[in-house]
Amino acid sequence: MVSTEVEYVNKLDLEEPVMIEGLPGVGHIGKLAIDHLIDELDADKLVEIYSQYLPPQVLVDEEGNVDLAKIEIYGKETEDDVKDILMVSGDHQSVENKGHFEISEKILDVSEEFGVEKIFTLGGFATGEVVETPKVYGAVNDLSLKEILQEVDIKFKKRTPAGGIVGASGLLLGLGKKRGIKAACIMGETSGYMVDPVSSQAVLRTLSKVLGFEISLQELEERAEEVEEIISEIKKKTQQQQQKPQPSRDDLMYIG
Amino acid sequence: MVSTEVEYVNKLDLEEPVMIEGLPGVGHIGKLAIDHLIDELDADKLVEIYSQYLPPQVLVDEEGNVDLAKIEIYGKETEDDVKDILMVSGDHQSVENKGHFEISEKILDVSEEFGVEKIFTLGGFATGEVVETPKVYGAVNDLSLKEILQEVDIKFKKRTPAGGIVGASGLLLGLGKKRGIKAACIMGETSGYMVDPVSSQAVLRTLSKVLGFEISLQELEERAEEVEEIISEIKKKTQQQQQKPQPSRDDLMYIG
Amino acid sequence: MVSTEVEYVNKLDLEEPVMIEGLPGVGHIGKLAIDHLIDELDADKLVEIYSQYLPPQVLVDEEGNVDLAKIEIYGKETEDDVKDILMVSGDHQSVENKGHFEISEKILDVSEEFGVEKIFTLGGFATGEVVETPKVYGAVNDLSLKEILQEVDIKFKKRTPAGGIVGASGLLLGLGKKRGIKAACIMGETSGYMVDPVSSQAVLRTLSKVLGFEISLQELEERAEEVEEIISEIKKKTQQQQQKPQPSRDDLMYIG
Amino acid sequence: MVSTEVEYVNKLDLEEPVMIEGLPGVGHIGKLAIDHLIDELDADKLVEIYSQYLPPQVLVDEEGNVDLAKIEIYGKETEDDVKDILMVSGDHQSVENKGHFEISEKILDVSEEFGVEKIFTLGGFATGEVVETPKVYGAVNDLSLKEILQEVDIKFKKRTPAGGIVGASGLLLGLGKKRGIKAACIMGETSGYMVDPVSSQAVLRTLSKVLGFEISLQELEERAEEVEEIISEIKKKTQQQQQKPQPSRDDLMYIG
Repeated sequence: MVSTEVEYVNKLDLEEPVMIEGLPGVGHIGKLAIDHLIDELDADKLVEIYSQYLPPQVLVDEEGNVDLAKIEIYGKETEDDVKDILMVSGDHQSVENKGHFEISEKILDVSEEFGVEKIFTLGGFATGEVVETPKVYGAVNDLSLKEILQEVDIKFKKRTPAGGIVGASGLLLGLGKKRGIKAACIMGETSGYMVDPVSSQAVLRTLSKVLGFEISLQELEERAEEVEEIISEIKKKTQQQQQKPQPSRDDLMYIG
Repeated sequence: MVSTEVEYVNKLDLEEPVMIEGLPGVGHIGKLAIDHLIDELDADKLVEIYSQYLPPQVLVDEEGNVDLAKIEIYGKETEDDVKDILMVSGDHQSVENKGHFEISEKILDVSEEFGVEKIFTLGGFATGEVVETPKVYGAVNDLSLKEILQEVDIKFKKRTPAGGIVGASGLLLGLGKKRGIKAACIMGETSGYMVDPVSSQAVLRTLSKVLGFEISLQELEERAEEVEEIISEIKKKTQQQQQKPQPSRDDLMYIG
Repeated sequence: MVSTEVEYVNKLDLEEPVMIEGLPGVGHIGKLAIDHLIDELDADKLVEIYSQYLPPQVLVDEEGNVDLAKIEIYGKETEDDVKDILMVSGDHQSVENKGHFEISEKILDVSEEFGVEKIFTLGGFATGEVVETPKVYGAVNDLSLKEILQEVDIKFKKRTPAGGIVGASGLLLGLGKKRGIKAACIMGETSGYMVDPVSSQAVLRTLSKVLGFEISLQELEERAEEVEEIISEIKKKTQQQQQKPQPSRDDLMYIG
Repeated sequence: MVSTEVEYVNKLDLEEPVMIEGLPGVGHIGKLAIDHLIDELDADKLVEIYSQYLPPQVLVDEEGNVDLAKIEIYGKETEDDVKDILMVSGDHQSVENKGHFEISEKILDVSEEFGVEKIFTLGGFATGEVVETPKVYGAVNDLSLKEILQEVDIKFKKRTPAGGIVGASGLLLGLGKKRGIKAACIMGETSGYMVDPVSSQAVLRTLSKVLGFEISLQELEERAEEVEEIISEIKKKTQQQQQKPQPSRDDLMYIG
């Protein structure tokens, strides 16, 4: 096994598709959006990417069946007047510096294999404060894309985000530029402290305008409510735990 | 020396053996179990795996003799109606992300060399609370194994453990699946704060039912008592130390 | 893509140029100096170095256009009696041990490509205390350079800085020595706690004497004032934030 | 440049020499000992080992001249009845796990090049308490060496040190064993909190009995006094600093 392996698991004949990436990141905005989109479009898994730069673990599913941490790319043929779509999803990003580059290059290899015309990466833009009505910001690797995004009310702010765009959402633009693949990052404002399905919806709404087709957000709204419930449950548990006596150093002792 | 090296140190003619892995992990449940099994069966060491991903150190034995940190695989021919066994043991797992994958792949290479039919990995499942009568949980890389485990009262719980199964116990399932090797992880409930020979016994009892032969647990019970003694000794020392005056910053000063 | 890639983006016919390096480091002294020099000389970008050892991110410019983290080398033909100049700039150094070596070797490859005669690396020398009138210290990889530096009042102090010179400013001397390229490091005294444009000016003033041409420092003085303003703004914000109630652990909770 | 490079810088005709290693470690006992021995024997530098696993920095000498972090091997022809000696010294060990293995393998390559008959590694054995009269402990990679060490009153204690022997002092034994090179580690008791020239002298005294020649310890005793002085100076400064008002968070602010 080489460090990072691409496996084509299903075939689908896509025409100059648009690739959309939503790996985990700030506020899980990209991940929530892409997983919703894959569900909503009932897309087919076409590619699996395994990497020694992903965490060394398996996840257990509903049946007790396990699977390696991996990145998956789904595809969907759409109606005639809308671009076909590839969607990049996963539970993890690389855990090492070099792995971020390697995994993004592999995703770009796949995009070239499918003749991808444009890439949109989805992410969050941490403001440090709770945002009621999140705005959506953009960054591009080719100024020709800026106009398209501005038309659907995506904002551009100089040198923003100040810390740059980290991980696959940034590298697909940066490394894509070197290969001549046009790419833009669409970022929803978010506090940066919590999973943010509200900002994720704002990003998806904007994306649907860019792509020119409707995306039902109902299920995502329900997810938002689920997440709200989980958060308040955890808050409750945390408060209960804070009221319990804490284990002493002796109780916690671990003999290796 | 390449990063990870497999050395076959003894020969033994095993027939479609079952491989059992018990490297260090949560509660040292797998390690306690496998080391007991190797002792109890008086198994022969067949393979040594050396790796630059293991800690850069030697361990000193009773005689003052040293040996590189390594992973060892022992083998045992059993009676006719029971599967032969390979047992994977060691004092360490990889210290780097990539090394976890490399070492697990090497263990799988060995399993293929011996025509292994099935792999069982042993581990702990941290609950965060002290567990009086530990239950035993399972996860599989092929649903056909689930039935076998459920027959001997191994529980399956969806998406559990929630954080996935980390290290060799997880990767042997995940990477094994890609090679078509069936594998299951058997996990004993444990607090996660201490070495847990009680939970280890529960895992071994279950394993003996899966394999269809008796394992005397007497020595492991004695070990459990030894561990209890060590723990209470350390507790005593810790308490004594906490009563001693602590060294000041000056005393601790280190000139590099 | 290999780990580190050198791209020659423009041509310029330079005659035995001097190379000056100013990557980020203590007090950002080198970086402030080199960026000022590139502006002041209106130099042309000749080389871009991309590396998987730089942070996995893109930076966003004034237009919302992104670019991979990279190291850039600019060039300038000067008047007849002054050496031509190559200038090494960037927003980052390697994030891994090995990458420091690899990137410095690549910079040395470029220096050989251009027939560089001498290298000057610019840096800061942390004293731990605020310095009103920063002195300038030197270190060399060939004693013949020491005299030249002492002539323009650069100080030499034995085994100083005590911790050695870390990163590209040190490695270009150390690795350069093995290739027979003469190199010196010019360090401005600085507290080590802040970006220090005053010490950066002291370094540039000294450098201009070494190179034998005038460098207008006006713009850098303005930058110094800008930095002062930014610092006092941040101080103000920090104080305001310290007066605000802090978010509780619940508010900060992040659901992954 | 490959990751680790061996350069033979001088020739010396040694007959089945003994190799002694003293890289930095617990209490700097090995380093103090080997540097003293090199001085005392007026040995010649024969080999330099450069590695991308050593810190990315240069050290500055008395003249302001810099040199890459490296490992050096010195040699000395001795009188007829005593074994010739190779001495391994340096200011650093590897900063990465894998590098420890790589550097130790390179040192073993050199030992084979010189037909080394035996290796002694020098180190410290941390007890956590101040030790007035340090004992000297041993560990071997071949039991035939144990007797030789016991004859000169080196102690052996089972499974000691409990945490194993980390770094080159351990790996030269472990990796040497696989090459059939006999090696022993000689460890002086030390608190583990300070550079310990007293324990270093104890180790050297023992070593001189093993090797069968006298080593004047005068200079090392003087060094011990120097170190004592440095320690008390630093203590004084630390106390003064603790009495000074500490810089506030604002003063320490760093603008990157």
